[in-house]
Amino acid sequence: MKDEQPAEVLGEGRFARFVRRNGWEFCDRTRVGGIVAVAGLTEAGEMVLVSQWREPVRAVVVELPAGLAGDEAALEGESLETAARREMMEETGCGGGRWEELLSGPPSAGLSSEIVTFFRATGLSRQGAGGGVGNEKIATHLVPFGELEAWLVGVQAKGWLVDPKVYAGAWFLAEAAGGKGAE
Amino acid sequence: MKDEQPAEVLGEGRFARFVRRNGWEFCDRTRVGGIVAVAGLTEAGEMVLVSQWREPVRAVVVELPAGLAGDEAALEGESLETAARREMMEETGCGGGRWEELLSGPPSAGLSSEIVTFFRATGLSRQGAGGGVGNEKIATHLVPFGELEAWLVGVQAKGWLVDPKVYAGAWFLAEAAGGKGAE
Repeated sequence: MKDEQPAEVLGEGRFARFVRRNGWEFCDRTRVGGIVAVAGLTEAGEMVLVSQWREPVRAVVVELPAGLAGDEAALEGESLETAARREMMEETGCGGGRWEELLSGPPSAGLSSEIVTFFRATGLSRQGAGGGVGNEKIATHLVPFGELEAWLVGVQAKGWLVDPKVYAGAWFLAEAAGGKGAE
Repeated sequence: MKDEQPAEVLGEGRFARFVRRNGWEFCDRTRVGGIVAVAGLTEAGEMVLVSQWREPVRAVVVELPAGLAGDEAALEGESLETAARREMMEETGCGGGRWEELLSGPPSAGLSSEIVTFFRATGLSRQGAGGGVGNEKIATHLVPFGELEAWLVGVQAKGWLVDPKVYAGAWFLAEAAGGKGAE
């Protein structure tokens, strides 16, 4: 461990701040207990994906169902698995199944302090409409796992972007199935 | 496309700035032509990974070889593939082989405008020492692809973190080999 210099706050927002420490500049979420993302597969073998407008990149982005743990007062102290199950249900209406916590890793370690905890959920079933809460506008996509590559190529052809964590999720699901593509 | 409001700069650094636009707060790199990351496999079937200290998460992080295109005056205008090959050589000493551009996607679309362009490189050979340039201190790891899972579990057990893009890279390599694990 290197000595920690005090962080210098270069900019303060409502949800995050911009910090300099030991010569590095990065974003730091300020009201979050953790970040969760779920590689989910339905009983029918479909990968559960979502898409939504992401202003930082000004595009619709295809992502794993994901969200923040404990980002509202009523949710303070919730466990990461509780948050992951809640986000999956809110965003996609999918629930049930078998859940397993995987790694926690930083998706952008050079520019952000974010650490995402991944879950694998298999045997999910559609129990609600999804779509998100509040002013979230989230579309759900149930993609047959064997058609994933072609589907992702297709959405990129129409100008959407794909978060690389989707491919990490595909690896986690293939791992559970004992081989890529779950053939 | 939604109407674009002018961005409000909440904080300005040397390498990045912190911006609010249409109610979103995010980080924006300011001196970059693009970001590249490489899923690389040697002739001997080893995945090429790097590790380095990442101050934003205060840990050693295992990542794909990666870097910024055109972040120095002398590199202005270089193509993304040129940048990817340069970063692979600088960081790991690996070169040669067959290169293919894959998707460009945002690793953290809720908090950052970063978009990473992925390459797949196979048949790489070790031609130099690697380690990075300037004050970079980068360790190279050549991990037999069939032992990847166990190796990643091992490094996390000693307190290192793994960037989820490593798993995306594993998916890209498995895809090329026609099956997960390249068995």
